[in-house]
Amino acid sequence: MCVTSRFDSSVYAHRLAAAAAATANAGLAGLVITPGYDLRYLIGSRAQTFERLTALVLPASGRPTMVVPRLELAALRESAVADLGVAVRDWVDGDDPYRLVGDALGGLPATVAVTDSMTALHLLPLAGVLQRTPVLATEVLRELRMVKDPSEIDALRKAGAAIDRVHARVPEFLVPGRTEADVAADIAAAIVAEGHSEVAFIIVGSGPHGADPHHECSDRQLQAGDIVVIDIGGPVEPGYNSDCTRTYSLGEPTAQVVQQYSVLQRAQRAAFECIRPGVTAQQVDAAARDVLAEAGLADYFVHRTGHGIGLSVHEEPYIVAGNDVALTAGMAFSVEPGIYFSGEWGARIEDIVIVTDDGAESLNNRPHDLIVVPV
Amino acid sequence: MCVTSRFDSSVYAHRLAAAAAATANAGLAGLVITPGYDLRYLIGSRAQTFERLTALVLPASGRPTMVVPRLELAALRESAVADLGVAVRDWVDGDDPYRLVGDALGGLPATVAVTDSMTALHLLPLAGVLQRTPVLATEVLRELRMVKDPSEIDALRKAGAAIDRVHARVPEFLVPGRTEADVAADIAAAIVAEGHSEVAFIIVGSGPHGADPHHECSDRQLQAGDIVVIDIGGPVEPGYNSDCTRTYSLGEPTAQVVQQYSVLQRAQRAAFECIRPGVTAQQVDAAARDVLAEAGLADYFVHRTGHGIGLSVHEEPYIVAGNDVALTAGMAFSVEPGIYFSGEWGARIEDIVIVTDDGAESLNNRPHDLIVVPV
Repeated sequence: MCVTSRFDSSVYAHRLAAAAAATANAGLAGLVITPGYDLRYLIGSRAQTFERLTALVLPASGRPTMVVPRLELAALRESAVADLGVAVRDWVDGDDPYRLVGDALGGLPATVAVTDSMTALHLLPLAGVLQRTPVLATEVLRELRMVKDPSEIDALRKAGAAIDRVHARVPEFLVPGRTEADVAADIAAAIVAEGHSEVAFIIVGSGPHGADPHHECSDRQLQAGDIVVIDIGGPVEPGYNSDCTRTYSLGEPTAQVVQQYSVLQRAQRAAFECIRPGVTAQQVDAAARDVLAEAGLADYFVHRTGHGIGLSVHEEPYIVAGNDVALTAGMAFSVEPGIYFSGEWGARIEDIVIVTDDGAESLNNRPHDLIVVPV
Repeated sequence: MCVTSRFDSSVYAHRLAAAAAATANAGLAGLVITPGYDLRYLIGSRAQTFERLTALVLPASGRPTMVVPRLELAALRESAVADLGVAVRDWVDGDDPYRLVGDALGGLPATVAVTDSMTALHLLPLAGVLQRTPVLATEVLRELRMVKDPSEIDALRKAGAAIDRVHARVPEFLVPGRTEADVAADIAAAIVAEGHSEVAFIIVGSGPHGADPHHECSDRQLQAGDIVVIDIGGPVEPGYNSDCTRTYSLGEPTAQVVQQYSVLQRAQRAAFECIRPGVTAQQVDAAARDVLAEAGLADYFVHRTGHGIGLSVHEEPYIVAGNDVALTAGMAFSVEPGIYFSGEWGARIEDIVIVTDDGAESLNNRPHDLIVVPV
């Protein structure tokens, strides 16, 4: 509860300047960022969002202002605000904080971009004061946040190594008769023990539950013969996430499972191998999908191939049909095709990768094989 | 991670009908509720909000519809949707889910109320499709959610008793030389051990940190002579929260602390004693504030007297100057005056109370005294 680590203030100074430039370039009056990943990205603040408005107001030009309830002033100290020349405007119950945002923008009406996570509770009164419907900050911050800087890549590498260590321990947790919830509890402890600050998510999909890509866990007992999908992750300080899936077999799998899994393995590999700067996100998705389609398995791959990752577990770029964003060095995302046979079993292989100058680096390095656990 | 308890479906059927009636009464086309406390309140769903839209669409009249990504269909099973006659419209990547919301409302343009927690990511495109700026669902759901039904009151009583048991154990954790973070770790374990499903928040404000009402915890070591504010809580299944503050003294307090604390104790009592149906929220705030003002301590009470509580730790009614909502039986809120002497010490006494037919019931029943821990 007391963790406050962040990067050097120079990292945030660079990001604020780049965000202001992108805002000006988009013809907007400014950015308004309530607590969430964008705020953490821009100033290293882990403020949380409550019913009282806390917001970073970044005008297209000029000094940024932090509008903050007086009660939350002390929590600002942990962020980089003090080192960044950000003005602080505190307010108390009874004041109109949305009016303070308008003041910090330097004139009304104003069209601003708001962080994607701003809640209606704040967005609707803010839009009223600004007299213009805001746009999404994603439009301004996408390029910045998608391309990770060296400090972020280093943090993601640490997270990838940490979750690899957890997967190395998973076989010992998979014992017939134990429930998915029992296994999830062991994995939760291992996620923290291996260096994550907390658990973000744990999927233990055994037998037919493996056919539901978003199943979490249940009281189902593991059985000999089960195929088990384990998809797990969490943040490593200063907050960058891991996310890695491997599929396990309790005892020897059937010939059909072996054959279908081998197609999935080739699909994941094909997607990974096509990654390099200039290739589009949808081409990566198609590379995995085509391998599955050739083997008649297209209908069993029911989700996109991947999602960006960083401070948030799911962020841009999404590796999905229709997304023609061109990859550039420094982008980080998952490559995670899966096959799902309703009521029977499922399998998924997921690594986090970084786009390099001439290809991709995988941050997860456990074997891709269907891992057979003796029973 | 696998908890899915909720009330009987009849509870949710009643709430949906009441919400639809309130929506019609407000002249709105419908309610649009993305994951969060309102969705949990209305259908018992703990769906989480991601970049893909999940939304309950409750027209002012007619059948409600759940718009849900096909990937999340399985998670819907844990909610009351199947028993409530809610239509399910699933969608896949590439579809326009906001258009599905418009279809479920039965006609455009449409002015709807959206849940306060809907994010800009969904609210801005939804407003575009509906061709009208939405209003906040609070306006429609406030009356419903503020007045707790018997099942909710029972859940809040359990939560109150659970956090009382934690406070009973707090003195053993308060040992000079231990850090606030050490104490917070012990309290976290006790919160779960005493029946909460998780920790919602822990404030350990020792010595000068007690003068910051929103301090969480730090590496400061406790010292003999410290006054320590402990403000803690969390949800008890099916998700109703505790929130209770007591103030502790490591060794005998000074005469001045004793005198000022006794005023705070009278202020908290005065607020509690004025609660009954028909009294306004601001009158309760004033009752506490007046006692402190008479003793010259008005400037040291820097926040409102309380906040509503239920599925959310902070919800309506807010017990604050300017809020003229009249209390009615079944409302649940905190009564928590505090005094804060910057750089020196602070104190707060907080109970959760339920408005009864002729007064109030306190759900927290540990003594209000400054609790002296021998050192």
